[in-house]
Amino acid sequence: MHTLDRTAKYWALLLGLILASLCATTQADDGYRMWLRYDTIANDTLKQQYRDQLQQLVVTGQSATLQAAKAELTRGLDGLLEQKTAHSQRLNNKASLIIGTPDSSSAIAKLDLGSSLQAVGPEGFIIQRREIAGQNATVIAANTDTGVLYGAFHLLRLLQTHADISTLAVQSAPSIEHRVVNHWDNLDRLVERGYAGLSLWEWGNLPEYKHNPRYIDYARINASLGINGTVINNVNADARILSDAFLTKAAALAEVFRPYGIKLYLSVKFNSPMLLDGFDSADPLDPKVQQWWRERVKKVYQYIPDFGGFLVKANSEGQPGPQDYDRHHADGANMLADAIAPYNGLVFWRAFVYAPEQGDRFREAYDEFKPLDGKFRDNVIVQIKNGPIDFQPREPFSPLFGALQKTNIALEVQVSQEYFGFSNHLAYQGPLFEEVLDADSYAKGPGSTIGKTLAGKVFDYKHTGIAGVINPGTDRNWTGHTFVQSSWYAFGRLAWDVELSSAAIADEWTRMSFSNADSVRSSIGNIMAISREAGVNYRMPLGLTHLYAQGHHYGPAPWHDSSGRPDWTAYYYHQADKNGIGYDRTKTGSNAIEQYNPPLVTQFAKPETTPEDLLLWFHHLPWDYPMNSGRSLWHELVHKYDTGVAQVRQMREQWQSLKGQIDSERFTQVSAQLEVQLRDAIYWRDACISYFSSVNGLALPKGSPAPAHPLQYYKDQESVRYVPDPWYPI
Amino acid sequence: MHTLDRTAKYWALLLGLILASLCATTQADDGYRMWLRYDTIANDTLKQQYRDQLQQLVVTGQSATLQAAKAELTRGLDGLLEQKTAHSQRLNNKASLIIGTPDSSSAIAKLDLGSSLQAVGPEGFIIQRREIAGQNATVIAANTDTGVLYGAFHLLRLLQTHADISTLAVQSAPSIEHRVVNHWDNLDRLVERGYAGLSLWEWGNLPEYKHNPRYIDYARINASLGINGTVINNVNADARILSDAFLTKAAALAEVFRPYGIKLYLSVKFNSPMLLDGFDSADPLDPKVQQWWRERVKKVYQYIPDFGGFLVKANSEGQPGPQDYDRHHADGANMLADAIAPYNGLVFWRAFVYAPEQGDRFREAYDEFKPLDGKFRDNVIVQIKNGPIDFQPREPFSPLFGALQKTNIALEVQVSQEYFGFSNHLAYQGPLFEEVLDADSYAKGPGSTIGKTLAGKVFDYKHTGIAGVINPGTDRNWTGHTFVQSSWYAFGRLAWDVELSSAAIADEWTRMSFSNADSVRSSIGNIMAISREAGVNYRMPLGLTHLYAQGHHYGPAPWHDSSGRPDWTAYYYHQADKNGIGYDRTKTGSNAIEQYNPPLVTQFAKPETTPEDLLLWFHHLPWDYPMNSGRSLWHELVHKYDTGVAQVRQMREQWQSLKGQIDSERFTQVSAQLEVQLRDAIYWRDACISYFSSVNGLALPKGSPAPAHPLQYYKDQESVRYVPDPWYPI
Repeated sequence: MHTLDRTAKYWALLLGLILASLCATTQADDGYRMWLRYDTIANDTLKQQYRDQLQQLVVTGQSATLQAAKAELTRGLDGLLEQKTAHSQRLNNKASLIIGTPDSSSAIAKLDLGSSLQAVGPEGFIIQRREIAGQNATVIAANTDTGVLYGAFHLLRLLQTHADISTLAVQSAPSIEHRVVNHWDNLDRLVERGYAGLSLWEWGNLPEYKHNPRYIDYARINASLGINGTVINNVNADARILSDAFLTKAAALAEVFRPYGIKLYLSVKFNSPMLLDGFDSADPLDPKVQQWWRERVKKVYQYIPDFGGFLVKANSEGQPGPQDYDRHHADGANMLADAIAPYNGLVFWRAFVYAPEQGDRFREAYDEFKPLDGKFRDNVIVQIKNGPIDFQPREPFSPLFGALQKTNIALEVQVSQEYFGFSNHLAYQGPLFEEVLDADSYAKGPGSTIGKTLAGKVFDYKHTGIAGVINPGTDRNWTGHTFVQSSWYAFGRLAWDVELSSAAIADEWTRMSFSNADSVRSSIGNIMAISREAGVNYRMPLGLTHLYAQGHHYGPAPWHDSSGRPDWTAYYYHQADKNGIGYDRTKTGSNAIEQYNPPLVTQFAKPETTPEDLLLWFHHLPWDYPMNSGRSLWHELVHKYDTGVAQVRQMREQWQSLKGQIDSERFTQVSAQLEVQLRDAIYWRDACISYFSSVNGLALPKGSPAPAHPLQYYKDQESVRYVPDPWYPI
Repeated sequence: MHTLDRTAKYWALLLGLILASLCATTQADDGYRMWLRYDTIANDTLKQQYRDQLQQLVVTGQSATLQAAKAELTRGLDGLLEQKTAHSQRLNNKASLIIGTPDSSSAIAKLDLGSSLQAVGPEGFIIQRREIAGQNATVIAANTDTGVLYGAFHLLRLLQTHADISTLAVQSAPSIEHRVVNHWDNLDRLVERGYAGLSLWEWGNLPEYKHNPRYIDYARINASLGINGTVINNVNADARILSDAFLTKAAALAEVFRPYGIKLYLSVKFNSPMLLDGFDSADPLDPKVQQWWRERVKKVYQYIPDFGGFLVKANSEGQPGPQDYDRHHADGANMLADAIAPYNGLVFWRAFVYAPEQGDRFREAYDEFKPLDGKFRDNVIVQIKNGPIDFQPREPFSPLFGALQKTNIALEVQVSQEYFGFSNHLAYQGPLFEEVLDADSYAKGPGSTIGKTLAGKVFDYKHTGIAGVINPGTDRNWTGHTFVQSSWYAFGRLAWDVELSSAAIADEWTRMSFSNADSVRSSIGNIMAISREAGVNYRMPLGLTHLYAQGHHYGPAPWHDSSGRPDWTAYYYHQADKNGIGYDRTKTGSNAIEQYNPPLVTQFAKPETTPEDLLLWFHHLPWDYPMNSGRSLWHELVHKYDTGVAQVRQMREQWQSLKGQIDSERFTQVSAQLEVQLRDAIYWRDACISYFSSVNGLALPKGSPAPAHPLQYYKDQESVRYVPDPWYPI
């Protein structure tokens, strides 16, 4: 027996050494796997429990989607449970994990899940733990293979977050019909506002190199969230995307995404007939133009039979559109909608418009689109940015939500950190998304939140959607900053379930992306909870907005007062002078507040009832206006700037506490990025305070340090302060 | 005993499973490790032999460079020998691997290596297998820590290529003093002619994020070849690189590279005093300008104490230079040289110039620089492209080699495939580099090869150098196409030893990058052997050159006959008309051949004695000129185009034979890229033959297929045929 013991010990030791070296490998994490990390569960008891509960995988269907689900579960269970997953075609005396639809699995067909399945619709799923033929089994069932795939990712998430799966009874269906990511990728592979490398789409070697592992991983990442559409090119579209050359390439991508339930969409340029075929007009009411689109659409569907549809930015920031021919947006959208309707395609038509005239830019999308409500075809969805301006750190919600009642709508939010420090800053966007979804338009009385509206519970929409402008590029970790991943994650999770809280999502993401250890969850949770508000505070608190240097949107230039258009300056937005600051949007000003529904009109009409974090969006107030804190507006403003800097310091401190608790690669990278962020936060605070104090001539409150440099220094730095961005070289 | 057996078997099985899963991991190879792959040696006998021969590693020095050598050996031996490397501070009864200098290692000091060490100079090394204190030991010794590091990489290469190390007696020193890689990276992270993602240098988060693992791996890759300098920014330089903001960032990179023996150099803009500090002149003879440079250089050395020096592109393609002030190149170079001399810095001054006047561009670099021979300071090195034009698939060597006899010179070659199909095509450049190094200038009679000249064996140069324009970017495999790695490798190996053969280097690279299996070596060896010649054949055989579409340099446009300058057209180079084709550079033409030394002048003067692969570089010949093959020039030309296409088919076939023998990830990617290459090769052949036959009105030889489309098709495609390149968007 001694000999035996020693031999066993020898092997065990060797095994340990090998596993240790394995672990050493997995401990260096470059972020590529995003949240789909399937490292072995460290808690042995839990791991054994899961092993006992999921002894074999039973997949009987053969579709590409079911094979993808099977592959994902195998990969996940192999890793998490540290064993080769057993596969079986039939039930036996083992605890099975059975996945499928009633059509693909006779075992599932026998379970009589009719009503539960009916309740979850075409994309939902149910997961049940129940006894089948005398054995404990776990069932993932759905009406479609895609639903099964979503259920598979859900189960893996439960394991990754160490959930108890002994009595599972999950019934889940998406809140919103179309859950779409938007890429702002140009055909030359530059990504507008991307900051994470070049475009993922390697046009130069497509369609030949379609089996690029990165394309499949991209699809897995999105499918894990239930995202069912991707617009692969920039809304500032290149007409050539509709050429046969590019359709051949796009079709190869669509083929890779298809098994993952992801439809491919394209951004198109409204005057494509002119640019591609020499037409002298793109008038949507011109029969020749309509014919051109019908033929092109037919061609598109020859290449991509399940093509999703078009996304259009028209008559916005120089893009062509129907107004070039004195037609309105509905004319343009409906022309495309008619061409694509025979194939069940959709047209996402953006409401991000602002005419070049003077006036309050805040008003313009509403003023243009509200009169068109009800005039759009059933297969048009008007895609509205969360706020009335442009993805600023904090905006009130766009009054179009609640105003378009007979027009399908989609919400557009930005994961890419165009206004949040690019990929240098940590700024989890979950709280922003949550704020928007929870905002109440009062369109049908209290409770008419944007989330409920998108879920089709307020108006009787034919379709709804949600679009997230994501930034992935060739950077190894996809998003440049690891924490931009968390915003992508939050976007997808909220698209699936608008009722989720951003804090719960942050915790889920942290468990999957870093660790289930309480100390890690608590530190990262704290950081994520304050990061967006910190970004507001050190840039533009109290409802200030758009104080950026023009064009690159990274650094501050509150002094900026001349430009091609007034609404590209900072002054246009803050209106600061010796006497006060803020944009009067009440009756004495632009009266933009009239675009909201009654209770809000009243609320926003007076500074006392306006939420302080939106105050200067709606009111021009004297510098000594008394705030709730008892401070004057000026002192409160400085206090907010100081708070923003303090919050970044706090984030940095929290992050340092993670040393040794997470992999060193991401620890080091985020540490360095937090140094950059602190440098920038101080810079923002100092530049803005320098400027505003030069305008109002007031002293800083006691205890608040003077800016490091005189105002002129910051003005001089505006061009020198170089943040390399191939999209926007200075 | 049965029980024991079974237990052992159980553990062995488990172990096997784990190792299998380990192997499954290593089998997916994304190319990131380049040739520094340290996967376990599959041959058990050999592995055991190495284990016995290298039982422990003895490193006594503490310098960062020795620590890097130790870390590399540990990583390499851990992987290759599949065991934890034992470390010791002293000799004992184990077979030691001892590394160090006589200063850092008393064991090495005792070996009395004086004369051998003297022979290998400051960067060379010796590796000996010998008995020390009664034990077999392996010794890596050098005069400097960098030499030790190079020796460490050499030993690992021996193991990676399965060499017999039982009787090692290596003595190695570099042929060329300055072995430098050149990046054409812009500060906005676009890489000119890079095709492999964005620049590696993440300026936006430097200096904070200097511990980017990619920077260290970059340094390892170069150090493994003995590369001792890197110019990190584009020769089309941005003056801001000399600003304090960027010097701070560059200094962080220099700090990372330093332990690996790699000096940092910068490309500078000649009129920096004007752009950075508002000077109204950059006249090199202006004392104020000289003073500006002295001060800036002083600053540079404050940031980077071991800064290598400047690389300058002046009075070339619109870049400013001394000629703007009626000064000559030596005036400009010497001014910078004087400023940097106190710090032992160098000035690499490029000879790639061509004046905007009419005339033969071939002549221009020689005509400008030859008269200046001997007028440059001792710390100036004139950097000369291999050919007289610009990195074409085949050029005769630049006549400046052999002509500059009293001026330090460097050879500049291109690893990046600007003219070789970007990162889509497989085109191992080793044969091209070898062809250049072996070219004989006859400057001091036969044997005055460029290789020997650079090795300082022909003229009494104070310094020499070799520069490789490399393309690494953020693409996961660094270079876009896996085989561009092989050209980087060949550049470095030839820089170290100009006598190596490109075929031997290809085999070395294949063993390290793919496999030591004979069948793999043979297939990849065949592919690499023909790839460059294939690229010549399907693009511009028989001495044709520069038939590219203007600007993007990917596709063909032999019909191109008007441009901003005549020498940017294709017609300028081929001069094809009804009667003949080729550029007459004999006495009846531009007489550029007079720039070569006597035996070559005679040889190139007549078509009969001119090598056929250079024929149309020097002669305008009738279409029916009889070639050695017996074919007419026209038929030979078509034959060459056909051969090029056939060679790509052959490469594709050879590659397919590797299925299952190499990792599937690189197999799939290169397979797809070869499809692209075949498509492009056919396109090149068809477009060129269409055009030339339209000029000469001659029929194709029998058996040679007609082009797929009429000529107009190819002309129309010139703008549509879009190869995405953020550097050169169409």
